[in-house]
This record gives sequence, C-alpha cells and structure tokens, in this order.
Amino acid sequence: MSLFVTFEGPEGSGKTTQCRWLHQRLLSLGYDVVLTREPGGTPLGEAVREWLLALANDGMAAETEALLHTAARAEHVASIIRPALARGAIVLCDRYADSTLAYQGGGRGLEESALRSLQVFATRGLWPDLTILLDVPVEVGLARRRESGEELTRFDQEALEFHERVRAWYRRAAEREPERWRVVDGVAPAEEVARQVWETVASHLPRLQRVR
Amino acid sequence: MSLFVTFEGPEGSGKTTQCRWLHQRLLSLGYDVVLTREPGGTPLGEAVREWLLALANDGMAAETEALLHTAARAEHVASIIRPALARGAIVLCDRYADSTLAYQGGGRGLEESALRSLQVFATRGLWPDLTILLDVPVEVGLARRRESGEELTRFDQEALEFHERVRAWYRRAAEREPERWRVVDGVAPAEEVARQVWETVASHLPRLQRVR
Repeated sequence: MSLFVTFEGPEGSGKTTQCRWLHQRLLSLGYDVVLTREPGGTPLGEAVREWLLALANDGMAAETEALLHTAARAEHVASIIRPALARGAIVLCDRYADSTLAYQGGGRGLEESALRSLQVFATRGLWPDLTILLDVPVEVGLARRRESGEELTRFDQEALEFHERVRAWYRRAAEREPERWRVVDGVAPAEEVARQVWETVASHLPRLQRVR
Repeated sequence: MSLFVTFEGPEGSGKTTQCRWLHQRLLSLGYDVVLTREPGGTPLGEAVREWLLALANDGMAAETEALLHTAARAEHVASIIRPALARGAIVLCDRYADSTLAYQGGGRGLEESALRSLQVFATRGLWPDLTILLDVPVEVGLARRRESGEELTRFDQEALEFHERVRAWYRRAAEREPERWRVVDGVAPAEEVARQVWETVASHLPRLQRVR
C-alpha cells in the first residue's frame, strides 16, 4: 500500500530540508521512497521551473502562471508520482497542487473553484494522503530566504501582503480539511521540526508495514 | 470596434497561407490588423511550441499537452490579443482554443467539458467573433504536409484515425455553432479559397467601418 505525502508552506519554511531528512530516514529503514519536488521532477517540470522563477518573466498573467504550474504537475503525476504509488512506494513531494491554490488563489486572487477544477483535470483527482504544513510567520520565512544565500526568485520579490495571503490560505486549508493536513510549527529548531514531522509520518506508516 | 478572427483546420489545410494573404489584403486597405498564431505569438508561446511539436516529447500525457497549449494561450490573450482588440484592431489568429478542443478532445479523447472550462479560465471567456474552418480530407492534408518540405512534427506522426477524429470534431463544431463558424472547402485552389475567405471576412468588416 502506497503513501503520498506532500510538504507545503511559505518561502523559507524549511520544507526542502525536512523532505530530505525524512527521505533519508525512510531509506535507512528500508522503505521504497521517492523524493521529488514541484515545479520540477521531470525535464518539462524543470524547464517550467526555470521559466516560472525567472525574474525576467515578471508580468506574466496569473492564469498563465497557474496553468504552467499545473501543466508541469500533470506530467509529474503521470510519469513519476502515479507509477511510484502503483508499485507501493512512499512518495514525498516538496509542494504540490495546494501550492497553486495558495499562491495563485490565495496570493494572486484567482478563483479557488476554477483552480481546484484545474488540479482535478491535471492529476485525474490525485490528492495526497497526508500534507504537512510547515508554518512560519512571513517575516521569519523571508529573512531565512535572504540569509540562505540562495538565488532569489520572482516569488521572493512579492510584497509582504502577498505572502501573508499565501500563509493565511494554508492555515485555512489545514483547518477545513484536518484529516489530510498536519500543521507543524516551522519556527522551532530544525531538529525539533524533524521530530514532529517524523511522528506524523510514522503514524501513517503501519498501513504500509501490514502489507510487507 | 474590434474583430477577432481565427483559422482552424487539420494539418495541411492551408491556414497559414490564407492567414498571411488575408493579413496583407487588410493591411493594404488600411486596417489596423494583427497576425498571430498558436502555439506561439509570445516568447513563452514559442518556447511551448518547440516543446509541444518536438518529436522527442512523444509520450507526454494528454492532460499535459492540453495544459501547455492552454498556458501559452493565456499569455497570448493577455499580452497580445486583448490589447489589440482593446484598441479596436482586427486580430487574425492561426489556431486558437478550438484547436485544443479538436486535438486533445476530439483527437485524444479528453473530456470536452473539462477542456472548455480550461479555455474559459485561460482566456477569461474570450471566443472569436468568426472562426474559419478550412476543411480538407485527412489524406489530402497529410500529403500536402509531406510535400511541403516543412519539418514534420509529433502531430504529423499520429495515426490516420487521430486526424479523422480531429476533422470530425471540427465539422461537428461548425454545425453546432453556425453563427460563429464558416466552413470553406480547403481542397479548392488556394486563390479560390482566398476569395471565399475574403467574402466571409468582408461581411464582418462593415461593423468596423461604421466607427471609422
């Protein structure tokens, strides 16, 4: 039995680090586990990632942004995520459909129901079993991004209010659908965050072990 | 008052030639007219065009194909087509939303209602005032493509049945919505086709001249 776990959260929430650590821990326990990310994960996805994050493409219509993310997701689901789940693997994905709802819906104001229909079309209705929201105040996340020395993207340049709307969308989503979402305080030290992430994921693992 | 004209039809139906001739004729009459094409028309559109037409990307999920075309269309509408229509220009577009319905719906079998919702999302509901279907039997169109010496694309490699389904979709669409579509026999000599295209377009022009 497979397990599909996604990580969501604003910029600088520590998703990438936590995904990697969790991946290593599951591998060391002998699980068949695939770590992937969005946008990215396929050659098309990486091409779209470059397009979307490039500062030069500022001014792109919000609909274009949502559709490009969703196009890359369709390919990612068809070529990477579904085949892995079909063989019973654990899939860990750094951002997924909720990011489009949070950034282009919550952040840019596109209608959520239209964005949801897009996701259902692109993924043929595949939603995660578990979504971990690493929640950090916007200022904390953005300060971490600046200190990280990583290249800044179009999204880092957005106004504070944009990031506040994204964070608010995430928190509302977690409240609306508590059976899928778990909120972890991303301000805590990374080791403490990792402990909470592990507890949450471990509680979903017995389903897998029973069929081993 | 603006006018939005699209050209549709199977491969080798002569759309590109007819668009160019019509563009020249309207220019020579002094109209403000923009000739553009899909996929293409913007830097993103041309990048997507390369992706979509490359033989190497065979095996792409049908949903990905539909979403990439539609993403490029969103940008094309926002940055080229709407601004031109807003200033009162005539826009001639070689393929538009109906191509996605014909190829990914009729041809690949994706659900038409989902594809229509995508188009409404991407274009904010912008449909052409007039769509000219250049109708040719599939064998004629494909033979023309092969004889043209142009580079063949993924779509040229599809089975005859695929192209038959695309053509059938176009003919049904023209029957369902006769107030928007005009069917022109694309097998006739190019000059005769141009004459019929001109008659059709000219019948829409007085709306423009009245406000000049």
